[in-house]
This record gives sequence, C-alpha cells and structure tokens, in this order.
Amino acid sequence: MMVLISYDVAVTSPGGKRRLRKIAKECTNFGQRVQYSVFECVIDPGQWARLKNTLEGIIDVELDSLRYYYLGKNYRKRVEHIGAKASFDVDDPLII
Amino acid sequence: MMVLISYDVAVTSPGGKRRLRKIAKECTNFGQRVQYSVFECVIDPGQWARLKNTLEGIIDVELDSLRYYYLGKNYRKRVEHIGAKASFDVDDPLII
Repeated sequence: MMVLISYDVAVTSPGGKRRLRKIAKECTNFGQRVQYSVFECVIDPGQWARLKNTLEGIIDVELDSLRYYYLGKNYRKRVEHIGAKASFDVDDPLII
Repeated sequence: MMVLISYDVAVTSPGGKRRLRKIAKECTNFGQRVQYSVFECVIDPGQWARLKNTLEGIIDVELDSLRYYYLGKNYRKRVEHIGAKASFDVDDPLII
C-alpha cells in the first residue's frame, strides 16, 4: 500500500531541527521524498505499524504534526507533479 | 472531489516569498491549510481546472513544484492526523 506522509516540525523550537532530520531519515527507509516535507512510502502493513510508531515517538505532539494519507494500491493514477523535479537529501538546505 | 495540494517553493530565490504567499492565498479560496505547505481542497471539476491553471501560472517551474493528489469523494477515511492541530494564516511565520 502507499502512504503519503506529510509533516510540520517547529524547527525553531529546541530540538526542532533534530526532530525534522530524524523524521526524514526514518521515512527515507521506506519511501521517496517528493517534496521538502512530504514522503511517499510503499510499505506493507507490518512495516507501517512500526514506522508510524517510530515517527510518533520522535515528534513533539504539542508543537509538530504528522499527517498520513492512505492512497491504497492504485495510487499512481491519483498523483500529478508539476514543475521542478524532486531531488532531496535529508540534509539539504531549507526549501519550502 | 478532494484534491490534496502540496508545494515546494524556493523561498530564497528572487520573488520566492511572493510566490509562496500567492499560492497559499489561491488555495485558501477552496480549501483548508492542514500543514505549512499542504492544502486540502474540496472542489468541483470546473473550479479545479481554474485553480490548477492559476497555480501553474504562479510557480517558477524551474525552481518550484506542485504535487496534486486526487483523493476522490471518500477522502475522510484516507486521512489521519497526529500531533499539533493545524491552524495557519497565510502570513504566519515559518514552520516546516
């Protein structure tokens, strides 16, 4: 199944940049970074349960947020990209 | 139908902040800002054709990108939110 993960991390809060980096690194194990704060993960339910648990242990729930979109198996027909090609490294400089 | 719109704008490029603000303002007319660079728009096909055209006229296709996810009518069951509640103003300070 495909899960789209988007996140907002309060990077100016204490430890914010570290949380952002950790979230991005965890998502990288299962998916592709398509925009600065958006990952598309093709993942099985067991892996997803573990990743979800890990991500929710990283964020500060008072300040940050995660949003998941369950796009199912036929996700390719649901996605359209316009403009610059996504090409990110987890440690890339800031682009929003 | 529901269209999820996510965008990356190269804010440090000339005019980048202006493009970011314009994109966010256009999306606000049709949807809810759920994260800093993610909007959920509930929109009919005619409105979507116009909004899409407007957004693609704003971005710099060499530097910025838009990504659309067509989530259909039963989108509520596809979405899950964890952590801080989304509450944004288009002119809010930077949170990623």
